[in-house]
Amino acid sequence: MPDATARDLGERELIARVTERLEILGSRSDRVLLGPGDDAAVVVAPDGRVVATTDVLVEGVHFLREWSSPQDVGHKAAAQNLADVMAMGGTATALLVALVAPPDLPVDWALGVAEGLRDEAARVGAVVVGGDTAQGDRVVLSITALGDLAGRPPVTRSGARPGDVVVVAGVLGASAAGLALLRDGEREGPLVDLHRRPQPPYALGPALAAAGATSLVDVSDGLADDLGHVARASGVSVGLHRGRLEAVLPDGVTLEDALHGGEDHALAGTVPAGTPLPDGVVAVGRVDPGPAAVLLDGEPVRGGWEHFT
Amino acid sequence: MPDATARDLGERELIARVTERLEILGSRSDRVLLGPGDDAAVVVAPDGRVVATTDVLVEGVHFLREWSSPQDVGHKAAAQNLADVMAMGGTATALLVALVAPPDLPVDWALGVAEGLRDEAARVGAVVVGGDTAQGDRVVLSITALGDLAGRPPVTRSGARPGDVVVVAGVLGASAAGLALLRDGEREGPLVDLHRRPQPPYALGPALAAAGATSLVDVSDGLADDLGHVARASGVSVGLHRGRLEAVLPDGVTLEDALHGGEDHALAGTVPAGTPLPDGVVAVGRVDPGPAAVLLDGEPVRGGWEHFT
Repeated sequence: MPDATARDLGERELIARVTERLEILGSRSDRVLLGPGDDAAVVVAPDGRVVATTDVLVEGVHFLREWSSPQDVGHKAAAQNLADVMAMGGTATALLVALVAPPDLPVDWALGVAEGLRDEAARVGAVVVGGDTAQGDRVVLSITALGDLAGRPPVTRSGARPGDVVVVAGVLGASAAGLALLRDGEREGPLVDLHRRPQPPYALGPALAAAGATSLVDVSDGLADDLGHVARASGVSVGLHRGRLEAVLPDGVTLEDALHGGEDHALAGTVPAGTPLPDGVVAVGRVDPGPAAVLLDGEPVRGGWEHFT
Repeated sequence: MPDATARDLGERELIARVTERLEILGSRSDRVLLGPGDDAAVVVAPDGRVVATTDVLVEGVHFLREWSSPQDVGHKAAAQNLADVMAMGGTATALLVALVAPPDLPVDWALGVAEGLRDEAARVGAVVVGGDTAQGDRVVLSITALGDLAGRPPVTRSGARPGDVVVVAGVLGASAAGLALLRDGEREGPLVDLHRRPQPPYALGPALAAAGATSLVDVSDGLADDLGHVARASGVSVGLHRGRLEAVLPDGVTLEDALHGGEDHALAGTVPAGTPLPDGVVAVGRVDPGPAAVLLDGEPVRGGWEHFT
């Protein structure tokens, strides 16, 4: 049945097919002590701690089936969770996946999502270890990522200190710019691709943690909003240098996209002055004493966006 | 605004209120090294491993807002995940919660769910450490539980051996019996309460693991179906004794409810013959050589149910 739906297969067979596509059993990851098929999975936590984060994607809110392939949706759902582990200075070990599917969802679509999840997780050596499915009106994907800190303290949002250098890594503003192009009818190109599949700089979270980063944050709601979290949690003023920021933007991306777009899953944070920066990390500003604010060339930047409004 | 909705508050304020209601920051659990408010949480994993499981509840499929209070929904969502950790022989340490909410969802309803999650998790000493919210048509609650095995191997479904004793713990069949009463218009009583808030025998998972249990399973789809998983994974025949099983059923619960109902979140499994049984654990049958099957007084029992059909 090439056009089989979730209803045609039933839940148990759907889970069996998705599990097979995830190639979990064949992956023999040394991070997974017990994979899917039991009441719960067992994952290694080498230093006696585990990083854990959950993000949810809803069809029509976070993606459209017309604009993104199922593989794209799987990549993006995995990426936004793996990026949260990166932003603690950790490396993801495992994903758990809850899929709410309409009964008429094509099985091939669900299998495509599984492929995307599997392949994005593989970029950091993580595997999908468990999950659940249920029936609903719209596709909902809820992902939990687990991760390892390799013995280091987690890098929070609250450690930025006056005198620190503000740094960014990864691609800024491309997701918002790509979404605007999709809305204008474009269906191809590097920015559209980056909207469909963000490219978090996974290795640079642990690298910056090892280099002594004082704060790190996943850039999921735009640089203004996410560095605003650092400013508030640390009680500092985060100053951005317009010229340096503009110099790292890809073609076709505006400063507005980088400051106020969403879903880039880039990395931002602070390091003590004089810290040698790992390749791919760029200095774009400086931390000053509070009050908490994000400034661009000394002027306050508006922040934030809301999912319910 | 006593009748405020998710839309009235916006996502950020909704998360702030829910986080406050979860009393996470005040709980100072020694299991939580870093709680909500950053990109990810950090939870202890004392023996270098972490148990992890995800379950999802959808409004209209797993619960109705007319039949269950928000506290009930929170209790049940937590219980079904905590029970999966119990069924590995572990104790839950932390929950992560994804809430998809319609914009017109009353804030008080979301806060009630948070109370239920908090209070059910507290029964095992676990706390909610993180989560996410998004907008959708229907309420979807996706929960991940993390847990600790205290140095013991996980108790899987595949270790049952001929000669083992089949055991159960917790309340069987009450959820299905309670659901039938709700459909008939009843709104009160012990079975209705157990449908709304299952009572997993949390302490007996670790107790049975410590006693040498060879298999354990969370009874979420009825005893026939869930012991069927043990039979298949272990390659054995699981024989149930009708008289012993009927003796443990609460008033108003039929053998059909216990064998083919769902959502009891009781515990079933196998122990070597002669194992002293912890209080609350009852012997109800015996394991024989395969082929894999579940038998009642020697007769095959039909199994299984499907979410998509």
